[in-house]
Amino acid sequence: MPSHEVLGEREIIEIIWKQLERTPNMPVAFGDDVSACQVDQQRLAVLKTDMLVGKTDVPPVMSLWQAARKAVVMNISDFAAKGVKPSALLVSLGLPRGLTRKDVEDIGKGLNAGAREYNTFVIGGDTGESSDLVISVSLFGLARKNALMLRSGARPGDLVAVSGSFGKTAAGLRILLHDLKARADVRGKLVESVLAPKAKLKEGLALSRTRAVTASTDSSDGLAWSLHEIARSSKVGFLIDKVPASREVIEFAKMNDLDPLELTFYGGEEYELVVTVKPKLFEKAKKAVEQVGGELLLIGRVTADEQVLLRIRGKTRVIEPRGYEHFRSDRV
Amino acid sequence: MPSHEVLGEREIIEIIWKQLERTPNMPVAFGDDVSACQVDQQRLAVLKTDMLVGKTDVPPVMSLWQAARKAVVMNISDFAAKGVKPSALLVSLGLPRGLTRKDVEDIGKGLNAGAREYNTFVIGGDTGESSDLVISVSLFGLARKNALMLRSGARPGDLVAVSGSFGKTAAGLRILLHDLKARADVRGKLVESVLAPKAKLKEGLALSRTRAVTASTDSSDGLAWSLHEIARSSKVGFLIDKVPASREVIEFAKMNDLDPLELTFYGGEEYELVVTVKPKLFEKAKKAVEQVGGELLLIGRVTADEQVLLRIRGKTRVIEPRGYEHFRSDRV
Repeated sequence: MPSHEVLGEREIIEIIWKQLERTPNMPVAFGDDVSACQVDQQRLAVLKTDMLVGKTDVPPVMSLWQAARKAVVMNISDFAAKGVKPSALLVSLGLPRGLTRKDVEDIGKGLNAGAREYNTFVIGGDTGESSDLVISVSLFGLARKNALMLRSGARPGDLVAVSGSFGKTAAGLRILLHDLKARADVRGKLVESVLAPKAKLKEGLALSRTRAVTASTDSSDGLAWSLHEIARSSKVGFLIDKVPASREVIEFAKMNDLDPLELTFYGGEEYELVVTVKPKLFEKAKKAVEQVGGELLLIGRVTADEQVLLRIRGKTRVIEPRGYEHFRSDRV
Repeated sequence: MPSHEVLGEREIIEIIWKQLERTPNMPVAFGDDVSACQVDQQRLAVLKTDMLVGKTDVPPVMSLWQAARKAVVMNISDFAAKGVKPSALLVSLGLPRGLTRKDVEDIGKGLNAGAREYNTFVIGGDTGESSDLVISVSLFGLARKNALMLRSGARPGDLVAVSGSFGKTAAGLRILLHDLKARADVRGKLVESVLAPKAKLKEGLALSRTRAVTASTDSSDGLAWSLHEIARSSKVGFLIDKVPASREVIEFAKMNDLDPLELTFYGGEEYELVVTVKPKLFEKAKKAVEQVGGELLLIGRVTADEQVLLRIRGKTRVIEPRGYEHFRSDRV
């Protein structure tokens, strides 16, 4: 088998997509964070499946409990980005030989913890043997058709905002995998962001209710990727003028002589929401998110020019379409 | 990690299940072939996920196209057993490094072929890297609540029937993996049953419409397991008095000095339906299946005694609760 050609994750998805016959009237485009089927005039069945693989998604110090919980969280995050409440989840497990009863219990407990944290339940699943640990989660929910926040609705002039600061997981992974330095309390927060990620479900549901959001995605492949995904789906561009780097990331970057922009834009395995918002409704959206205990940080605006640019201190540079991607990039 | 304890697939499912909080009013019990969520007064969202893993589910001669199609078929088979039409499917892929564009195209084409064969579509999915090939399929469908054929409704006196003959995949796997002998035309049929399995969806949908079926499951873990699963879920037993061995299996067994009963009852990766039927409605059920081009073979009856017995030529023996199971048994 010639392997001179190395395929990236998106290339693979595009190749697969080209082989598939289209179902008529898909309510959600292939490639958005979730898929959907019509249930009746008003409602959609919203579906999502994504797998966590031991080798690529589980750093060595992560426990089985944490890995199982993360497999749930990363799927919930896609529902959060669309503003959809998950009703139930199914799990398909591929388990390596030699797991003990305690190991399997920990996986079950982690799955349950992830589900209950977001007020949903594991209602079924299946198991088989595999070399890697594989935890494939499938989510189901019901949503009003016009309440779904897709990737495709951003318009020039809209504001772009995020549900929190970025870069913590990129920094945390560097601590865990390459043993980089950080002050004890900073270290704790950065590592925690990797081992115990949180999906911004409350925020996504609150945003969906405001009808202020024109496009939305989560940031599981990094902030830069999320911006490019919305840009591509909406045929727009971005001018970012605030860098949502977390305080801890700035300190960590300084201590280790790293570029905080690199950590902030090109990380991944982060589950913040990246949304575009009608300017007149921005305050309403911000308040709605704050009312559920979250934050909505304005970082720039949508442009007609299909480029993703960063302007800080009067200097403009291009935000590249790269980030956390299996197959092609290294993890860190 | 102590590995003195070897856990079987069912044991793992039971351990996981014990860690999970129950959702109130589950319309389908955990452990049945599918799961379900209420959509409205009459309807259920029916969900299923199961993964195909290269190492355990794909014999060496099986192509990627065949493997991808099989991943779809094995999930469709569970819907067939419940009498539910699949509306859409999602795919989560774990792909080893080094696959070529052609390999990925073949996977996409196989997924599409499997879906279109059963009149459904692939509407979304995700991909990541893994050591094994992993194809995790999630199915969604809508069903009237009272039309679902569960595992739990068999009553003593009901008849038990199957949608076709058994043992072909067990024989086919022995040919493929251990190079056992068979006449050319027989060989073709046996190998075909492994490489190109078929789900009995038309049959399942037809049976569901008759309201004649009291319990149903598919036979992906072998006929013996299916009988034991229904027995356990319905708290009944079986007396089987006809062995549904296929002609090819009998010939193959004779030629290779194997026990045809072993091949017929304790195989697996077969996708026939095993159903219990109200005696008065058996002819109606049989006709309904024949009208869609299938067959319904009577093999015995449901008993109150919670044992699964086989009586042939006046001799009674126990059908053991074993069959194709990952982790514990070898494949053949």
